[in-house]
Amino acid sequence: MNGAEALVRAARAAGVDVCFANPGTTELHLVGALDAVPEMRAVLGLFEGVCTGAADGYGRMTDRPALTLLHLGPGFANGIANLHNAKRARTPVVNLIGDHATWHVGVDPPLASDIESLARPVSAWYRKSSSADGVAADAAEAIAAATGTPGVATLAIPSDCAWGETSAVAAAVALPEFPLVSSDAIQRAAEVLEGDGPRMLLLGGRALRDEGLRWAARIQAKTGCRVFCETFPARLERGTGLPAVERLPYFPDQVLELLKSFEHLVIAGADEPVAFFGYPGIPSRPIPASCQVTELSLPTENIINALQAVAEEVGANADGPTAALSVPARPSGELNPVSLGTAILATQPDGLIVMDEAATSGLPFLLGSVGVPRFSYLTLTGGAIGQGLPCATGAAIACPDRRVLAFQADGSGLYTLQSLWTQAREGLNVTTVICANRLYRILRIELDRSDVSGAGEKAQALTDLGSPELDWVALAKGFGVPGERVATAEDLCAALERSYATPGPYLIEAVL
Amino acid sequence: MNGAEALVRAARAAGVDVCFANPGTTELHLVGALDAVPEMRAVLGLFEGVCTGAADGYGRMTDRPALTLLHLGPGFANGIANLHNAKRARTPVVNLIGDHATWHVGVDPPLASDIESLARPVSAWYRKSSSADGVAADAAEAIAAATGTPGVATLAIPSDCAWGETSAVAAAVALPEFPLVSSDAIQRAAEVLEGDGPRMLLLGGRALRDEGLRWAARIQAKTGCRVFCETFPARLERGTGLPAVERLPYFPDQVLELLKSFEHLVIAGADEPVAFFGYPGIPSRPIPASCQVTELSLPTENIINALQAVAEEVGANADGPTAALSVPARPSGELNPVSLGTAILATQPDGLIVMDEAATSGLPFLLGSVGVPRFSYLTLTGGAIGQGLPCATGAAIACPDRRVLAFQADGSGLYTLQSLWTQAREGLNVTTVICANRLYRILRIELDRSDVSGAGEKAQALTDLGSPELDWVALAKGFGVPGERVATAEDLCAALERSYATPGPYLIEAVL
Repeated sequence: MNGAEALVRAARAAGVDVCFANPGTTELHLVGALDAVPEMRAVLGLFEGVCTGAADGYGRMTDRPALTLLHLGPGFANGIANLHNAKRARTPVVNLIGDHATWHVGVDPPLASDIESLARPVSAWYRKSSSADGVAADAAEAIAAATGTPGVATLAIPSDCAWGETSAVAAAVALPEFPLVSSDAIQRAAEVLEGDGPRMLLLGGRALRDEGLRWAARIQAKTGCRVFCETFPARLERGTGLPAVERLPYFPDQVLELLKSFEHLVIAGADEPVAFFGYPGIPSRPIPASCQVTELSLPTENIINALQAVAEEVGANADGPTAALSVPARPSGELNPVSLGTAILATQPDGLIVMDEAATSGLPFLLGSVGVPRFSYLTLTGGAIGQGLPCATGAAIACPDRRVLAFQADGSGLYTLQSLWTQAREGLNVTTVICANRLYRILRIELDRSDVSGAGEKAQALTDLGSPELDWVALAKGFGVPGERVATAEDLCAALERSYATPGPYLIEAVL
Repeated sequence: MNGAEALVRAARAAGVDVCFANPGTTELHLVGALDAVPEMRAVLGLFEGVCTGAADGYGRMTDRPALTLLHLGPGFANGIANLHNAKRARTPVVNLIGDHATWHVGVDPPLASDIESLARPVSAWYRKSSSADGVAADAAEAIAAATGTPGVATLAIPSDCAWGETSAVAAAVALPEFPLVSSDAIQRAAEVLEGDGPRMLLLGGRALRDEGLRWAARIQAKTGCRVFCETFPARLERGTGLPAVERLPYFPDQVLELLKSFEHLVIAGADEPVAFFGYPGIPSRPIPASCQVTELSLPTENIINALQAVAEEVGANADGPTAALSVPARPSGELNPVSLGTAILATQPDGLIVMDEAATSGLPFLLGSVGVPRFSYLTLTGGAIGQGLPCATGAAIACPDRRVLAFQADGSGLYTLQSLWTQAREGLNVTTVICANRLYRILRIELDRSDVSGAGEKAQALTDLGSPELDWVALAKGFGVPGERVATAEDLCAALERSYATPGPYLIEAVL
């Protein structure tokens, strides 16, 4: 057995069974090892950002890491943007990088670079293996680190460590559990939530799954607090039969305005709200002095347990309200963000996974989704655009029995459109709706909000995607995915329903 | 004037006039500043790797840096692969990154990351500006550093430094000149080249332009040495009327075998030959003990001056031989790397710029190109694939009066195919030939060369691009570029000639 095979066997033993790969020469022994371990599925991406984004989507739906297999520093670098999103989503991901042989890197071959310097900013754990005997244990530790943090772990494997003979197998590594929240924190949160004045309970991370939502709803029913979710949840469970949450708005002035009406903010599993960008005259921390912050649980603590304990503490013995089935009427007429979102809501099959990177075109969707059939809702957690199509691809690998909707802005979709080919190759049940407004609309909005003076022709051109117009149906065809273009809400409804009824990927270019 | 405008004015004052941009919110004041300075051209890329690769192509053709404008750490990361190539090509490039406001980054907003850690591996120079007053001087220093190294300089500009008012303009920064080679080094090289036994003169960097080639040919004519170029030149001038050079082979066993027949290797402007990858049993430095290495000039020294001095030292007073016009007959029949290369050679217009990222499909081309009409030949210097289409795009911006041929492998082309849209938008005269062998062929070759045991179905699948087949004509259409598919050499010749006769971009999918 060589080090590569020992590594893949260790990953299998730790419960990992998918590898999103874009390999090169220094990964070929790892490629060979994938063949040696039949239970490890290998999925090819045509670009590294597809692999890392797919691993993020897979991890969000399974809470288990997938492997990525990436080529040296530059190949890894192509995956950094979506690893940044995975880091912010606290998704477990394990990157394998085939590095130059230990004895070769000293001559500074053309593809050599400082992999660690590239990897550290997105990796909670990084290691470079030093021997074939150590590779299996390194992989097991990487998996434990990714699962426990949870987050991104990156392991560089020099090619001589991959091809070298070994008999070393990894000792079973216990996958860590999230630490319990202190009783003090529970006590404090319970007191605040039971107290007077308007109170907000802000949920994030795994609090946004069924169990967390139900405990929060009990607390809400008992105490009268309002329950919000973070602006960009990694995964929010939503729809009929579940308690609904409100969403924290995006712009800091909106957050500030909202929080002015609360005396207390209790945070469970979310980061404290901060402005996405700094703007002149607007605070980075959009929390008015009149609103007091109490932290119940970090995103890396056992949030469910903490919410349950608070519910018990405040005597919330009855279930909170859940959403009744409520599906909007099918819209008609021209497509705009409202009619687009309504068309999706009106036709959603049960169990849909919605990956929302629709940016400005997606804003109305979530608001109207309280009572539609149950779905999982994934968002762009780290702001590094180009996450939607890969993440949808990985979610479809994770959940082959569910339909995935990639609800996708056109500008962002162009960063990682190669995902479509992986969807075609693997026959994945992904419907992609491209919101073709042919603009970087968010930048137009930011330009309008800003004091940028003299923004003229070039500013318009640098935020314009319409010259020439992109033909997404042709792009999809190029990657082997069928598709169509629609320009009305009724045509979008019909196209969505056709795609849901047909196995395999489908792309709908919705012209706004 | 704000800091952003001061920066753009400083860049213009230093002779920079193109910015390849993919901006986000933190760059909007810099976008506004581009409008304020009409002489600065702004070119939009739909993906950051397009911008950085285009800056590389532009810099190779002009020896002047272009700016890139990139969004925070993750946006920059998307450009790293092609910056790695630019670094290895020693191309001057200046990256501008709009960072979070100095007072905002402390709250760790979602898009915050360690930009410096990401930038250092590809940047010879890095700085984060600290005030609006300093931005113009920072930009001037970045340009001087990029020009003098030559290489990649990266400047992060916090948004408050961009929007802050300033009256500071940059003092004129002297652009550095390449240092002269010592007379000792010239003396030693001359002695070796005049001496006995088989001698190789290996040229790299700017020695591969007209002047360097002519001095080397003089030395060759006088001393009888053989003249080679490095395996992956950033830019090689080639064709009728110029002295021809041979090319160092790619695989280290081939280099080793070749160098066994030489007693002396004199290096002028190239790195010492090293194996691209480490292989079991093959040395990293493929130079036999019987071959003595003499370094005439580093790539960062004044190579032309050094070659001239050696020529004078050895008394090489007569011009060396130059290539007579010799164009191959038009090929016919099935497409393979030989007929494909011959079709290009047989139809090449004068002054073509050939960006060769054709990988295995491109190997026969250069060998047959000695006597075709004059052309510039650019290659993948750093091995980070996805460089060809962006680099061709930047070369076309640099040289609007010349035709550019992107000679492109299909696998590599998929990493940065968004370049096609920039070509369409800017009306660039780029002909793209996609070598559609529908494989990562180089990996198949490496698998055959290697001891990877058990490489079976997954190894085949992970090196296969044919399932489903990519439709490059549809992909081009999606980005607004017309194209066609050809399957014979005669059809390829005809398509090439049509494209050369028609302004604007065109894509030919050549099915091998």
